[in-house]
Amino acid sequence: MIAIDRRGLIAGGAAVLASPALQAAAPFAGRQAPAFYRFRLGDFELTALYDGIWDRPLDAKFVRNASLGEVRRALADNFLPIDVLPLPFTALLVNTGARLILIDTGSGGQMSPTAGSLVDNLGAAGVAPEQVDTVLISHFHPDHINGLRTKDDALVFANAEIMVPAPEWRYWMEENSATTVPEFARGVFLNAGRVFRNAGDRVTRFEPGREVAPGIVSIPAYGHTPGHTIYAIASGGHAVLVLADTANHPWLFVRNPHWQPIFDMDGPLSVAFRRKMLDRAATERMLVQGYHFPFPATGYIARRGTGFDFVPVQWQPVP
Amino acid sequence: MIAIDRRGLIAGGAAVLASPALQAAAPFAGRQAPAFYRFRLGDFELTALYDGIWDRPLDAKFVRNASLGEVRRALADNFLPIDVLPLPFTALLVNTGARLILIDTGSGGQMSPTAGSLVDNLGAAGVAPEQVDTVLISHFHPDHINGLRTKDDALVFANAEIMVPAPEWRYWMEENSATTVPEFARGVFLNAGRVFRNAGDRVTRFEPGREVAPGIVSIPAYGHTPGHTIYAIASGGHAVLVLADTANHPWLFVRNPHWQPIFDMDGPLSVAFRRKMLDRAATERMLVQGYHFPFPATGYIARRGTGFDFVPVQWQPVP
Repeated sequence: MIAIDRRGLIAGGAAVLASPALQAAAPFAGRQAPAFYRFRLGDFELTALYDGIWDRPLDAKFVRNASLGEVRRALADNFLPIDVLPLPFTALLVNTGARLILIDTGSGGQMSPTAGSLVDNLGAAGVAPEQVDTVLISHFHPDHINGLRTKDDALVFANAEIMVPAPEWRYWMEENSATTVPEFARGVFLNAGRVFRNAGDRVTRFEPGREVAPGIVSIPAYGHTPGHTIYAIASGGHAVLVLADTANHPWLFVRNPHWQPIFDMDGPLSVAFRRKMLDRAATERMLVQGYHFPFPATGYIARRGTGFDFVPVQWQPVP
Repeated sequence: MIAIDRRGLIAGGAAVLASPALQAAAPFAGRQAPAFYRFRLGDFELTALYDGIWDRPLDAKFVRNASLGEVRRALADNFLPIDVLPLPFTALLVNTGARLILIDTGSGGQMSPTAGSLVDNLGAAGVAPEQVDTVLISHFHPDHINGLRTKDDALVFANAEIMVPAPEWRYWMEENSATTVPEFARGVFLNAGRVFRNAGDRVTRFEPGREVAPGIVSIPAYGHTPGHTIYAIASGGHAVLVLADTANHPWLFVRNPHWQPIFDMDGPLSVAFRRKMLDRAATERMLVQGYHFPFPATGYIARRGTGFDFVPVQWQPVP
């Protein structure tokens, strides 16, 4: 009989593969499907746009208040690798019918060989970068802003107004120098200067807490960075909460909202906001989108024990 | 301040939408992304192929041994509708390097307006139906075999050998007539006749429990239907268990493996096999593919309480 376990299957497979191939099949394609996901939200058409994955090496410092063993166990429980965190990036495009608005921009291919496909996926979705009217930024970490520039520093969204949270601009562009930001944030500081230098006339700064585009309100979410801002989109009786980095990878930080990733500049403030938002999303059964949630990064928050679960939407055949 | 709840967001959004649009944006695309998902398994290249969703009306008979209230609660817990079960279909294409093998075929557009996209998604994945060398069938329910035929009854995979489990052929094609099959299975019986009539020379019958193609073994999984058969694929030290209908929608029948959907012809036998397979998959941490799991229908089985959870793979940027 057949051994239905990994060892038995693998041994059987290996034996079979030793036999010669008798014919040539279609060649391997070697490429992934275009990674965008479209859905309607009232009168709006939304598109989740995958940028790829950054394999972030894991060390004992990655979560400030959990041991490396606890972090690895949480990853293993969800069948992810335990030596690196494969951290996905997914941005969100909003077509309101009147404006085309992109929220965050991906890594611009400047962080990892396995990320930087946002513009390709935008093209597969039928949209040229020049068509984007507005780029909304959540905060100035490189994985959210580097897609504004090509590797050669050209602006990617040539006709777009770039809207940024004013407190984020103040912190990274006005109040600090390379010597006054904390050392762990120096790279972020230098990178923000590179991205936004000579783009001042394209940038509009806004104070979070107000509507920033028709149907889109900004919500202060300070803690992750000094000006981290999230967005709520509402149309025709439906709403989605764009969480940005309110939680990093859900299998770690939605399950364990009290864990403080090294990315959260103010750990306790981030935890308090994260708990509040996840609790609200679970209570209200709100649709959410998380920048570091597995593609298509859209779903719901359910309570589970002392934490929460991310429940992805079920892929639909039509938007 | 902003009310971060659905009512507040929706009220805000509605007010905003009452204002006139000032400019024309890019038109709505109105179409979903091509839905295939590619991954490597040792020396093989696999492609999950989405066929779409069948909205199966829910009534008290859908699960034999759970109340409609319990079923609805399980659906609501996973943010699905509670009046219909949106049941997805995803087949699996295996390129062994020597042969191109399709496991099950989708609905052929003959069951629901929101299903029948398998051939389109196959094309998006770069494969023509004529290139398929072998079609492996798990069982004769319409959502698994109707894709063998167009709506006009032409064979879709014009050059493929069709391999079917011999006990399934015997039950539906030889041992029964429209009057001897149970009444609830009469439609399945008539449909199987339609699909396989005049295709006998293309069909190879095999006794489950043996290798059916290089690296692919068949495993008897009787109960769901009299000849229901699942497949294990192994290559280069990796394996995936193709569960077919061992479990129907995971939020119902992986979470509650003892529940008997009306689709399981022999309920107790199906439950026993389902428990055994899910237990094995969880213990061995095996990669599994479920025909009715949410696209891309590939992931792992984790224990949870008295049942199990389906944990989807995290979408990868390259196969």
